[in-house]
Amino acid sequence: MTKVAAIIGGGVIGGGWLARFLLNGWTVRVFDPDPEAERKISEVLANARHALPMLYETALPQEGELIFCETLQEAVADADWIQESVPERLDIKHSVLADIQAHCRPDAIIGSSTSGFKPSELQEKSDRPDQIMVCHPFNPVYLLPLIEVVPSVKTSQEHTEKAKDILRSIGCYPLHVRKEIDAHIADRFLEAVWREGLWLVKDGIATTEEIDDAIRYGFGLRWAQMGLFETYRIAGGEAGMAHFIAQFGPCLEWPWTKLMDVPELTDELVQTIADQSDAQSGAHSIRELERIRDNNLIAMMRALKQQGNAAGKLIKDHEQTIQKPAPLASEMVSVRRVIPVDWTDYNGHMNEGRYGQIYSDAADGFLGALGAGQEYVDAGYSYFTVETNIKYILEAHAGQKVKVLTDVLMAEGKKLKLFHKMVREDGELLSTCEQFLLHVSLTTRKSCDPVSPVSENLMNFA
Amino acid sequence: MTKVAAIIGGGVIGGGWLARFLLNGWTVRVFDPDPEAERKISEVLANARHALPMLYETALPQEGELIFCETLQEAVADADWIQESVPERLDIKHSVLADIQAHCRPDAIIGSSTSGFKPSELQEKSDRPDQIMVCHPFNPVYLLPLIEVVPSVKTSQEHTEKAKDILRSIGCYPLHVRKEIDAHIADRFLEAVWREGLWLVKDGIATTEEIDDAIRYGFGLRWAQMGLFETYRIAGGEAGMAHFIAQFGPCLEWPWTKLMDVPELTDELVQTIADQSDAQSGAHSIRELERIRDNNLIAMMRALKQQGNAAGKLIKDHEQTIQKPAPLASEMVSVRRVIPVDWTDYNGHMNEGRYGQIYSDAADGFLGALGAGQEYVDAGYSYFTVETNIKYILEAHAGQKVKVLTDVLMAEGKKLKLFHKMVREDGELLSTCEQFLLHVSLTTRKSCDPVSPVSENLMNFA
Repeated sequence: MTKVAAIIGGGVIGGGWLARFLLNGWTVRVFDPDPEAERKISEVLANARHALPMLYETALPQEGELIFCETLQEAVADADWIQESVPERLDIKHSVLADIQAHCRPDAIIGSSTSGFKPSELQEKSDRPDQIMVCHPFNPVYLLPLIEVVPSVKTSQEHTEKAKDILRSIGCYPLHVRKEIDAHIADRFLEAVWREGLWLVKDGIATTEEIDDAIRYGFGLRWAQMGLFETYRIAGGEAGMAHFIAQFGPCLEWPWTKLMDVPELTDELVQTIADQSDAQSGAHSIRELERIRDNNLIAMMRALKQQGNAAGKLIKDHEQTIQKPAPLASEMVSVRRVIPVDWTDYNGHMNEGRYGQIYSDAADGFLGALGAGQEYVDAGYSYFTVETNIKYILEAHAGQKVKVLTDVLMAEGKKLKLFHKMVREDGELLSTCEQFLLHVSLTTRKSCDPVSPVSENLMNFA
Repeated sequence: MTKVAAIIGGGVIGGGWLARFLLNGWTVRVFDPDPEAERKISEVLANARHALPMLYETALPQEGELIFCETLQEAVADADWIQESVPERLDIKHSVLADIQAHCRPDAIIGSSTSGFKPSELQEKSDRPDQIMVCHPFNPVYLLPLIEVVPSVKTSQEHTEKAKDILRSIGCYPLHVRKEIDAHIADRFLEAVWREGLWLVKDGIATTEEIDDAIRYGFGLRWAQMGLFETYRIAGGEAGMAHFIAQFGPCLEWPWTKLMDVPELTDELVQTIADQSDAQSGAHSIRELERIRDNNLIAMMRALKQQGNAAGKLIKDHEQTIQKPAPLASEMVSVRRVIPVDWTDYNGHMNEGRYGQIYSDAADGFLGALGAGQEYVDAGYSYFTVETNIKYILEAHAGQKVKVLTDVLMAEGKKLKLFHKMVREDGELLSTCEQFLLHVSLTTRKSCDPVSPVSENLMNFA
C-alpha cells in the first residue's frame, strides 16, 4: 500500500522533505497556514524534480499524490510519517506537536526538523513521547542524504529503528545521534566555522568571497568525500592517528586560545557581510544560485557514485532498491532514466559520448536479464563491445526522461549483435544503436563461448 | 628557458610541491638530509603522476628534470622558486632561511609551507625579507589548488605578484591573505572544527566515523563547491544576507557559549580517537586510502570542471594555458591526454561511452583548427554529429596516455566525414571511429552550409 507522509510547515525545509517522499512514490499531505505555502513549495518541488532523478541511472518510482490540506488533522490522520518544520520556537513546537498527537496514529513517526532543540525538550509536554524524535535534514533536503536522527531516552527504540529504515528507503542517510546535545553534531561544526568566519570578516582579514575560496579550493573538497578524521589519518601516515595527534596536536593548540569568544552582530558587521556577499554573488539571483549549487552537487555526487564511495555509495545502494529489472523479451526496456546535467556539452545537448554510455547501460540491462550480470562477471565471464554504429536523430536535453528498447539482431556462439532504440517519454525516437559484442573470459581477456545460464537463455534468440 | 624550483624539505608536503612543478615542466632540485627522503618523495610523485594528469582533457607539458642535491646551496643557487617545508619550529625555519638566502638569487621567490607562523616571524632574522612569504598548501598538494599566499609588510609587492603568477601557471589558486594572522585563514576553520570534534569524541557524543559521516554526507558536499557564505546566501533567500543573519544569528548563538575551551589531549582521549579511527578506516592501508581519496577528488573536480564551476573552473582556465592546438593537417593530432579514473567501468577498462567522448573531443580539436571553435559557436554555427561507427580493438585503461589522429574522409557543403584513430603512447591502435557530422545553425537547429572561415578552410579537403 502507498505510504503517507504529512508535512507540517512548508518552506525550503518542509518542501525539501515533501519532495523526497513524493519522488519516492509516497502520498504527501501538506499543512501550512501560510498563504504563500503552495507557491514556496512548488518552487522547491520544481528544483527537486529537476535534480533528484539525475542522481540515478534508473527512473524513480511513479511520483506520489500531493494533497494540500485545510487542517492539520486532515494532514496527519492516516500518516505513517509526520515531519514538523515549523519556526524554531519551543512554545510553537510544543503546541504543534500537541496538535499532531491529538490526531495522528500512535505508530506514526513524528520527526522534527529542529536544528537547535533536543528531543527531550520537544517531548516535555507530551504523554506519548515514544513516537517523537529529531530528524534534522540539510539543505537542499532533496539532494543531501544526511539526516541526524536524535531520539531521547523516552523515544522508543522501535520507532527509532523504523524511522531509520524509512529514511533509507527514500535515499537518506540516517545518522543515529546516540546522546542528545544542543545543535546535534553537524551544526556544532557549522557554528564553529561561522564564528571564525565572522571574526575574519570583522577584523578585515578576509572577505566572504576569500573565505569561501579558502574552503572550496581546499579542505571543502577533502571533506566532501572523507570528512575530518579519515583525512587526518592519511596525514598521519603509516604511524597512525595517535602519532598524528602527538605531532600536530600541540601545533594546533596555539591559535586555539584566540578568537574563541563570540563577535557581536552589530549593524555594521551585518552590513559588511551583506555588502561583501553582494560583491561575491550578487550577479546571480537566488534561483540561479540554487540551480548552480544543485548542478554542482549532482555532478559531484554522480562522480562519487561512479567511484562507489562516500555519498555516491549511498545513492548506489538506494538505486538497487528501486531498480526493477525487466524480464528477457524482444524489444525489452533495458534503460529507463533521466538525462543528467553532466551529460550535456557546449552545444546545449547530450554529448555524443553519453549516447555510447546509455547504450552501454542498455547492453548491461539486457545482459542482466540474460543471466550475464554481476554474478556472471564475478564468475569470470563478460561481454566486451567490439563495434557500435550510433545514429543521432533528434537532440536530447538534460532533464528529459528517456528509455531504451533493446532487441537481438544476431546471437551465434560468442557473437551477439544488439539493436537499441532510445526513445523520449512522448514516444519520439532520439537515436538508434547497432552494437556488436563478443563473449569473453575475464581471465584470458580473450573471446570464448558463453556458459550456463547465458548459453541456455540465448536459445530464445537463435 | 626551463624554470627551476628548489624543494627544501621533502616529505608529503615538499613532495607534493615538487610534483606540481615537475609535472608542469619545471626542473626541480631537492635538498633533504633525511636518508629516507628519496623514497618518500618517490611515493608522493607516483601518486601525483597517476592523479594530476587526469584532471585535464589535454596532455600536461613534458615532465621536467628531477635532481637530488647533496647540499642546500646546490639546490637553491639558480632557482626561480624556493619552497621551504622543514619542521614547524621557528629556530629551524630561521636557520634554513638564512642558509637559503646566503646562496639564492635575490629575485627568487622564497615560499614557506608553514601552517602556523606569520611571514613577519619568518623574516625576523633576514636582511632580505622582501623575497620571503608564506605559501601554504593543502594536502594532497598535487591535486588541491589552494595556496594561501601571505606576504608581510616587508615582502615586496613585486615578489608577491610574481609568486601569484607562477602559482597560477602550475595550476594552483593563490589566495592572497592581505593581513597576516596566526594559522592564516583555512587552518583557523580546521582548528575550530577539530576542537569541536575532539569534544564530541571525548564526551562520547559521536565516534570519529559518525563525525566524518556528518560532514561528508551533508555540509562537506556544500562546501566543496560554494563554501560557507554563498551557501548561507541561498539559505537566506531573496531577502539577502542581512536577513539571513537577522533570522539565524540569534539561533546560532545558543551553543556558542559552550564547548569553546580546549579539551586536554590526555593519553586516554588520544587512544580513544586512535581506536575509533582504526575501527573506521583500519581495513585500508594509508596507501589505499590515499588512492581512494585521490580518485574521489579527481572524479569530483572533473565533475565541477564539466559544470565550469568552483575548483573545476580553475582547472579549465589552467588547461587553456597548457593546451597547444595543432594546426590543420591530414592525420592531425586532435587529442592528446591521459585516461582518467572516472572513464572505466566494472570490466576494469575504459567504458565504450568514453570512446564516444574522446571522439567528440577529437572532432572539437579538428573543428578548432578548422576555424569552427568557440568563436564560431558564439556566432551561431556548429557541427552536430549524426552518425558514428566505432571499432574497439584493444582495451584501454585508466592512466594510459593516448592520442587521437584525425583525417577528413569527405567534406561536401554541410556534410563532413571524419576518420579518427585512437593510439596508445607505444603506438598500438586502440580503436577507430568514422564520424559523420552536419553543419548547423544554432538558431534554427537545422543544417546549413558553412560560413567563413570554415568554408574557406574546408577547401583544403575538397
